[in-house]
Amino acid sequence: MTMTDPKTPWGGRFTDATDDFAIRFGASLPFDRRLWAQDIEGSIAHARMLAEVGLLGADDADAIESGLRSIGEEISAGRFEWRVEDEDVHMAIERVLTERIGDAGKRLHTARSRNDQVATDTRLWAMAAASGLLARVDSLRGTVLEVAERHVATIMPGYTHLQRAQPVSFAHHLLAYFWMLSRDADRMAAAHAAADSLPLGSAALAGTPHPVDRASVAEKLGFSSVIPNSMDAVSDRDFLLDLVYACSMIAMHLSRLAEEIVLWSSEEFGFVSLDDSWSTGSSIMPQKRNPDFAELVRGKTGRVYGGLVSLLTTMKGLPLAYNKDMQEDKEPAFDAVDTVGDCLLAIEGMLANMTVREDRMLAAAEQGFMAATDLADHLAASGVPFREAHEIVGRLVLECERTGRGMGDLTAADLEAADPRFGDAVIALGAAEVAARRRGAGGTGPDAVEAQIDQARALLEDNRWR
Amino acid sequence: MTMTDPKTPWGGRFTDATDDFAIRFGASLPFDRRLWAQDIEGSIAHARMLAEVGLLGADDADAIESGLRSIGEEISAGRFEWRVEDEDVHMAIERVLTERIGDAGKRLHTARSRNDQVATDTRLWAMAAASGLLARVDSLRGTVLEVAERHVATIMPGYTHLQRAQPVSFAHHLLAYFWMLSRDADRMAAAHAAADSLPLGSAALAGTPHPVDRASVAEKLGFSSVIPNSMDAVSDRDFLLDLVYACSMIAMHLSRLAEEIVLWSSEEFGFVSLDDSWSTGSSIMPQKRNPDFAELVRGKTGRVYGGLVSLLTTMKGLPLAYNKDMQEDKEPAFDAVDTVGDCLLAIEGMLANMTVREDRMLAAAEQGFMAATDLADHLAASGVPFREAHEIVGRLVLECERTGRGMGDLTAADLEAADPRFGDAVIALGAAEVAARRRGAGGTGPDAVEAQIDQARALLEDNRWR
Amino acid sequence: MTMTDPKTPWGGRFTDATDDFAIRFGASLPFDRRLWAQDIEGSIAHARMLAEVGLLGADDADAIESGLRSIGEEISAGRFEWRVEDEDVHMAIERVLTERIGDAGKRLHTARSRNDQVATDTRLWAMAAASGLLARVDSLRGTVLEVAERHVATIMPGYTHLQRAQPVSFAHHLLAYFWMLSRDADRMAAAHAAADSLPLGSAALAGTPHPVDRASVAEKLGFSSVIPNSMDAVSDRDFLLDLVYACSMIAMHLSRLAEEIVLWSSEEFGFVSLDDSWSTGSSIMPQKRNPDFAELVRGKTGRVYGGLVSLLTTMKGLPLAYNKDMQEDKEPAFDAVDTVGDCLLAIEGMLANMTVREDRMLAAAEQGFMAATDLADHLAASGVPFREAHEIVGRLVLECERTGRGMGDLTAADLEAADPRFGDAVIALGAAEVAARRRGAGGTGPDAVEAQIDQARALLEDNRWR
Amino acid sequence: MTMTDPKTPWGGRFTDATDDFAIRFGASLPFDRRLWAQDIEGSIAHARMLAEVGLLGADDADAIESGLRSIGEEISAGRFEWRVEDEDVHMAIERVLTERIGDAGKRLHTARSRNDQVATDTRLWAMAAASGLLARVDSLRGTVLEVAERHVATIMPGYTHLQRAQPVSFAHHLLAYFWMLSRDADRMAAAHAAADSLPLGSAALAGTPHPVDRASVAEKLGFSSVIPNSMDAVSDRDFLLDLVYACSMIAMHLSRLAEEIVLWSSEEFGFVSLDDSWSTGSSIMPQKRNPDFAELVRGKTGRVYGGLVSLLTTMKGLPLAYNKDMQEDKEPAFDAVDTVGDCLLAIEGMLANMTVREDRMLAAAEQGFMAATDLADHLAASGVPFREAHEIVGRLVLECERTGRGMGDLTAADLEAADPRFGDAVIALGAAEVAARRRGAGGTGPDAVEAQIDQARALLEDNRWR
Repeated sequence: MTMTDPKTPWGGRFTDATDDFAIRFGASLPFDRRLWAQDIEGSIAHARMLAEVGLLGADDADAIESGLRSIGEEISAGRFEWRVEDEDVHMAIERVLTERIGDAGKRLHTARSRNDQVATDTRLWAMAAASGLLARVDSLRGTVLEVAERHVATIMPGYTHLQRAQPVSFAHHLLAYFWMLSRDADRMAAAHAAADSLPLGSAALAGTPHPVDRASVAEKLGFSSVIPNSMDAVSDRDFLLDLVYACSMIAMHLSRLAEEIVLWSSEEFGFVSLDDSWSTGSSIMPQKRNPDFAELVRGKTGRVYGGLVSLLTTMKGLPLAYNKDMQEDKEPAFDAVDTVGDCLLAIEGMLANMTVREDRMLAAAEQGFMAATDLADHLAASGVPFREAHEIVGRLVLECERTGRGMGDLTAADLEAADPRFGDAVIALGAAEVAARRRGAGGTGPDAVEAQIDQARALLEDNRWR
Repeated sequence: MTMTDPKTPWGGRFTDATDDFAIRFGASLPFDRRLWAQDIEGSIAHARMLAEVGLLGADDADAIESGLRSIGEEISAGRFEWRVEDEDVHMAIERVLTERIGDAGKRLHTARSRNDQVATDTRLWAMAAASGLLARVDSLRGTVLEVAERHVATIMPGYTHLQRAQPVSFAHHLLAYFWMLSRDADRMAAAHAAADSLPLGSAALAGTPHPVDRASVAEKLGFSSVIPNSMDAVSDRDFLLDLVYACSMIAMHLSRLAEEIVLWSSEEFGFVSLDDSWSTGSSIMPQKRNPDFAELVRGKTGRVYGGLVSLLTTMKGLPLAYNKDMQEDKEPAFDAVDTVGDCLLAIEGMLANMTVREDRMLAAAEQGFMAATDLADHLAASGVPFREAHEIVGRLVLECERTGRGMGDLTAADLEAADPRFGDAVIALGAAEVAARRRGAGGTGPDAVEAQIDQARALLEDNRWR
Repeated sequence: MTMTDPKTPWGGRFTDATDDFAIRFGASLPFDRRLWAQDIEGSIAHARMLAEVGLLGADDADAIESGLRSIGEEISAGRFEWRVEDEDVHMAIERVLTERIGDAGKRLHTARSRNDQVATDTRLWAMAAASGLLARVDSLRGTVLEVAERHVATIMPGYTHLQRAQPVSFAHHLLAYFWMLSRDADRMAAAHAAADSLPLGSAALAGTPHPVDRASVAEKLGFSSVIPNSMDAVSDRDFLLDLVYACSMIAMHLSRLAEEIVLWSSEEFGFVSLDDSWSTGSSIMPQKRNPDFAELVRGKTGRVYGGLVSLLTTMKGLPLAYNKDMQEDKEPAFDAVDTVGDCLLAIEGMLANMTVREDRMLAAAEQGFMAATDLADHLAASGVPFREAHEIVGRLVLECERTGRGMGDLTAADLEAADPRFGDAVIALGAAEVAARRRGAGGTGPDAVEAQIDQARALLEDNRWR
Repeated sequence: MTMTDPKTPWGGRFTDATDDFAIRFGASLPFDRRLWAQDIEGSIAHARMLAEVGLLGADDADAIESGLRSIGEEISAGRFEWRVEDEDVHMAIERVLTERIGDAGKRLHTARSRNDQVATDTRLWAMAAASGLLARVDSLRGTVLEVAERHVATIMPGYTHLQRAQPVSFAHHLLAYFWMLSRDADRMAAAHAAADSLPLGSAALAGTPHPVDRASVAEKLGFSSVIPNSMDAVSDRDFLLDLVYACSMIAMHLSRLAEEIVLWSSEEFGFVSLDDSWSTGSSIMPQKRNPDFAELVRGKTGRVYGGLVSLLTTMKGLPLAYNKDMQEDKEPAFDAVDTVGDCLLAIEGMLANMTVREDRMLAAAEQGFMAATDLADHLAASGVPFREAHEIVGRLVLECERTGRGMGDLTAADLEAADPRFGDAVIALGAAEVAARRRGAGGTGPDAVEAQIDQARALLEDNRWR
C-alpha cells in the first residue's frame, strides 16, 4: 500500500513530486508556526467535541490531547523540529502527532478543513493580540496621566502651524494624547470583538455533514458566538483588517507625539531632555544625543500603514470562498502588532524618563505675542465687534515688531492711543495668566485641566474592567 | 478708519497683497462649500448660545440667525455667489452676513476660531454621511436577504481557489455578503459615534476666556457630548479616518461581489444575466453585454483605498495643534462617501434586477467531483482515519479522470473494489443531496440556510432601530 | 428607420432604457471632458489617415476636420453644451459632429474603438502633463541654484536627527534639493517616454481588418512609435502609473523641504522669514504669520500618494484586455499632476521671496559642540585610532557640558590635559572654519560648493535641451 | 584606561546603560546583517583608499583587508556569532575586526560615518538586486516568447469586460505580457542606475576634512560616479523607492497574468491545465487541483504595494539630513525584491509547464457572436456609416439570440433581408478567419504576430547586453 507522501497533505492524487521551489514558495510554515499554541488549543477542543458527539472514541481523544500537549511543550522549549515540507503549522503538528499516536492522529481532521482551522487559529491569535495591545495602550494612558498630573502648572507655548499661538499647560498638551489613545482603545476593543466568533465547523466552505457541536467548541475556546455562515467563516479577514487599522491609528498618533519629542529635544526648542537610556549617541559626532527611538516610532508608521495597504490590496476582488491569496494575511498582521506593541513601550519609556525643562518652556511662552488674542477678546468684551478688535490688535503687534517691543511693554496709554475703547482696565498678559483665563470645559486653565484629569482618570479606571 | 480687506480674514497685519496663485492654492472654498448647511447650523447655535450667556445681544442674535437663514436659502437655490477670495466657506458666509447686517455679523466670531468651527462643521457632515451610508447598507442587506429567500433551493458550485469544491445553495453564497455588510454597518455606526462630540468652544487651540456654554451648543446641534480637550478638539481627524476606513471595507466587500458578478455574467459561467438597465453594450462589438457597473464598483475600490492612504499620510507626524495640512482632510472623505454610496446603489440595482440562471448553476454543480468529500466523510464515519479516507478517494477521482467517468458512474462494486471498507451502503452523490447533508449551524443545507435567514432578518430588524 | 438613441453609443441592441442613476454612475464625461483637445486632435489625425488609405472620402475628411475644429473652438470658449447622457468626451464630440455634418460624422469611427481612442487621448495628455511638470521642475531647480549662489558663505547648523551636527553652508543644504529635483526630472522624462507610443489602430483589442496606416497617425500626433501589441495597447496604463509615481516622488521631496521651511519659520529656529505674500495670518491670533503654503505642500503629499495607491489597486488582478475598471485611471492622474504642479509653484514662490536670517543661522551654528568631530579627526590624523579619538572627545564634551563651557573655551592646555596626543597644534573651531575644512568633492566647504554649483548649472543647462 | 563599551559605538559620552528593550528596539542587526558582504566590500575599498592617500599605513590596510576577508568567510559559512548588542552589521563586523587586529581596526572608521557607510552598502545591494531581478524578468520574457512561438495559430476568445469580444491568437494574448515585462525591465534598469553613485566620503552629512579620494573608492566598488552633495548622499533613498516601485509594477503585471491563469484553470474556462508540480491539492477535497501558486502571486501584490507605501510614508516630511526613521528603509526593499523574485520564478514555472487545451480555446472562440464586428466592418467598407452598420448588426445579434441561432447560421439571404447593403459577398466568420483578417501592425493575425515575435526577440537580444 502506498503511504501518503509526508511532504504534502493531499498525497493520493498527484503523480509528480512538487518542485522544491514550489514547496518553499507555497509554504506558510516559516511564519504561521507562530500560531502553534492556538493550533494545539483549537485541535484539542475539536477532538474533545468529536468525542462528545461520538465521532471519536474517548481513548483517541485522550491520545490526541496528550500527544498535542507534549508537542506543545517541545515547541515551547525550542525542541520541536520544524520542516518546511510540512507546508504549514497545521500539517507539521498533525504529522508529528500521527507519527507518535498512529491512526488516532489521522482521525483528528474529521469534520474540519484547514480553511476553518486556520481561521480559528488566526482569530484566537488576533484576540490575544488585541488584548495585549489594549493593555499597553492603557499602560501608556496611565503614564500620560501621571506626567500630566505633575505638569498642570507647567506653561509652554501652544502651537498652531508650528507658530507660537497661545500659552498652554504642558499637562493639557499631553492630555490631548490621552484622548487619542482612548479612541485607540475603543478601536482595539472593536477589533477584538470582530475576531470573537468561531469559524470551526464550517469545514472547507459549506459546513460538514457530521453532527458537530460548534457551540461546545466555541465555549471551550472562549469564543462568544459561532459564525452563522460557513462561506463567510472561511473567507472573512475583516477581523485582521480591523486589527491592523487600529494599529495604524495608534501608529499615526504615536508618530505625532514622536515628532513633538524630536522637536522638543532639539537645541532650538530645548523643552525636554531625553534620558540616556532612551536616546543614543553618534558614531562620529561625540556631542550628539539623538532621539533615535522617537524617530524610529515615527518612521515605523510607514510599515504599519504598509501592512494595512497590503491586506486591503490582497482582499480586493477575491471571489468566495477561500483563495490561497489569503495566506498573505498573517505577516502584515503579525508585523503591525509587534511594531505597534514596541512603539507603545518606547514612547512610554521616553515619556516616563524624560526631564521636562520647565524654565525653557515658560521662557518661550512669555515671548512672542501670544497674549494678542486676549487683548482682542478684551476689546470684544467691551462691545467692539470681534473682527474689528482683531484688526486693531494686529496693528499693535505690527507696531511692536517694528519698534522691537514686546506686548508686555505696552502701557495703558499705548493701548488707549491705539484705540480709545481699550479704556483703562489692566489686562494681565503673562503666559500663566493668559492660560488660566481659559477655565471653561476643555480649556487649558488649571482648574479645567484638573477637571479633565479627573475625567480621564475615571475613564481609564472604567476601561480597565474591559 | 481702514476697512478689513474682504479678501483675507486677517486683514490688519499684512502689508503686501497676497499673490493670486497663493489665494487659489490656499483656498478650500471650492470643496468646503459643501459644508455650507453645517456651517450655518453651527453658527446659529453658537450665536444663540452667545446670547444665552450674555455675550451677544438678543437683537444681534436674531439678526444673525435670520441673516444666515436667508443666506442658506440662497445657497440652496443656487443663487449665492461664491468668491474664491473668501478662502473658505466660513469666511464666505460671514462676509456676506456682515455686508448685510453690519456689526452684528462681526460679533458672531466671538469666542470661536475657524479651527473649532471647521471641526464642528466637518463632524456634523460626517455624522450625516455615516447615517446616510448606514441606510444604504441596510437597504442592500435587505435586498440580499430577499434574493436569498428566493434561492434557498438553488444549487450552484461552491468554489475555493476558483475550483469547484462542493455544491452550495445560492442563498447561502449570497448570505455571506449579508454578514460582511452587517460588519460594515457596525463599523459605520462606530464612525458615527467617533464624530459625535462637540469641538466648538475650543477656539484656536486653548479654549476661550469667554464664559461659553458648550453643553448648550452640543444640545442644539445634536452632539452627545463635548470634547474634553481643546487641543485634541482642533487637531483630531480620527472621525474622518474611521469613516473612510468603514468606506474602504465596504468597497472591499463590494469588490468581491462585483468580481463574482463579472464572473457569473461571463459566457463561461453563465450563472446570471444582468438586466439591460444595469449593463452596457460596446461601441464596436454589437453582441456585447458588459457588466460595466460591476467593473466600476470593483475599480472604484482603488479610489477609496487611495483616500484612506491620503488621510493617513497627511496626519502622519503632525505636531499639535492645528496645522494647515489638515485642510486636506475633506476631499478624500467626501469622495469616499460619494463613491461608496454610489457603489452600494449600483450593486443593489444589479442584484435586484438580474436573472439567475438556475439551470446553468445546477448543471455546473453536478459536474466535477464535488461529492468526493462526502465519500471520504462516509469512509471516515465507518472508522477509517480521515487522512487515509481522503487518500483512497483521491485515487478514485484520479481513476475516474483517466477513464472519463463521473463520480455518479461509480457502482457500489467499484467502491468496494477500491476499498472494502466502503461496504454496500448507498451514498447519494447528487449536488442537492450533498448540499442538504450540511445541515448543522452555518451549513449550506436548506434547513440551516432557512435558520440563517431568520437570524439575519432578526438582526436587520434590530439594526433598523439604530 | 430607427435612429441610434443619442444617449447611448451602442443603440441597437438594448431593449430597455438605462436607469438614470446608471447613466450618471457609468459616465466619465464629468472628468474626461478635460481630454477634449486631445480627442479632437486624435480624431482629425485618424480621419486624415482614413482618407489617405482610401477608407474615407476626402470631402468627408474635410467635413470632419472643420467640424471638429469648430467644436474645439466652442469648447475652448466655454460655449459647448456638455450632456452627461453622452457618457464620455468621445461620444459627446462625435454626437455633435454627426448632428452637424451628418453621415460623414458616423464614418469617423471606422477602424477604431473607444478602447484605442481613449488610450490615445490619455497618452497625448500624459505627454503634455509630463512636459509641463518638467518645465516647472526645471524652473524650481533654477531658483534653488540662484538662492544657493547667494548663500555659499552663509553658515548654518547641519542636522542629523534634528540635532545640530556640523556647520554647513546654506547653499550646500539647498543644493541637496537640486539633486533630488534632478532625479525627479529624470523620472518625469521616463514617464513622458512611457506614454510616447501610439495605441490607435488597435481597435477594441485585436487590431482592425481595415488597412490603416498607424505610422502616419503616429507621425501626425507626434508619437515616436506605434504600440506593437493591440491587447497591450488598450489595457496598458503603465504610463499613468509612471507619471503618478514621478509626481509622488516630487511630492515626497517637496514635503521634506516644506517641513524644513515650517521649522525654519518657527520662532525657535528663526532661520527664514517668509514673505507676506507667501504666508497667512490667523483669524483669531493677530500676531501669527503662518507658513500655510509650506504646510499645504506637506499635507498634499497624502493625496498624491493616495492617487498612486488608487491606480495600483485598480489595476491589480485585471485580466486582459480592456475592463471598465480602467475608467478610474484618469482622476488620480489629473489630480496628481495638478497638485504637484501647484506645489512646485508654491515652493518656488516661497524660496524666491523668503528672507534668510543669516545672523540667526550663524549664531546657531556657533553653539553646541559641532566642532567635536574635527577635534576627533585631528587626533585621528595624529595617529590615534579614530574610535579612541572619538571617545576622548566625547569625554571632553561631557566635561564642557558639566562646567558650562563651549568648545571654543578649551585651551591647548585643556586639550593636552585630556590627552597628551593633542599636542600643541592650534585647531580653529569656528563654524565657518569647520565647514571650510570639508573641501573635498561633495563637501560643504566653499570651494567644494562652488564646484558643485558649476556642476549643477551645467546639468540644468544640459537638461533644458531635453 | 577605560575601554569603549562594545555594546554601543558611541561609548564615551553616555553615563547610563541603555535599556535592554531599547537595544532591541533600536537594533537593525536582525535585518541589516543581510548586507554583510557589501559592508565588507565597502570597508576594504575604503581602507585601500585610505592607504593610497596616506591616511592609513599599508600594514594596517593589509591587516584590515585580511581580517575582513576572514570574517566574510565565517559569515558565509554560518560560523559568525551575531550579537544584537552590536546594533547593526557595521558595528558587528568592526567590533570583531578590532578584537582580532587591534588598533588597525579602530582606524578603519577614519573619514567615514555610519551614515555614508550604510548608504554605500545599501546601494551596492540595490544594484545587485536590480541586476538579479532584471535577469529573472528577461528569463520570463524568454519563456513567454517561447510559449508564444508555439501558439501563433492557437485561437482563443479575446475578452473585454470578461465578455468574449473577438477571437485572438493565444500567442498574441501572451505577448501583451512580453511588452509589460519589457517596460518592467526598463524600470528595473532605471532603478539600477539610480543606485549607481557613491555616497562614501560624505561622512555624517557635511563631507570630511580628510583628503580622501572618492573616485578611487567608486572605481573599486564599481560605481559610475560619486554623489555630488554630501547631505543628499546620506539622506537620499530614492534608489530604494525606484526599486520597490519597479517591483510593484512587476507585481501588478504578474497579478494580471495570475488572475488569467486562475480563470483559465477553472472548470468553466478550462483553457489550460497546470502541471502537478505547479498546483496543489486540497486537504479535504481530493478532486481539487488548485492554482495555488497563481493565487499566491496575485495575493503577494499586496505586500509589494504595502512596501512601497511603507517607504513613501517613512520618507514623507523628513528634514535633512540623516534621521533614524531611514533605518526603516531596508525591510520593505528586501521583502519586495525577494517576493517579486519568487513570483517571477513561479509564473515562469507555471507557464513553461502548463498544458494548453487548444480544443477548448477554439471551441470557446467559435461561440458567441464574435464575428459581429467584422460584419459591421464589412458594411462600413461598403460605405455604410460605421455607427449605422453597428446598429444593424446589433439587431441581427438580438435576432439570433432570440431564435437560438449562431452567426454562422445566417445565410446571405438573412443578411440581405436585414439590410440590402450587405449584398451577396461571402464573409468568412470562423474564429481563425476573423483573427487572420487583423493583419496590420500590432494586430492578432498570424503574419502580424510573427512580425511581433521577431520584434520582441530582437528587443530581448538587445536587452541582454544591458
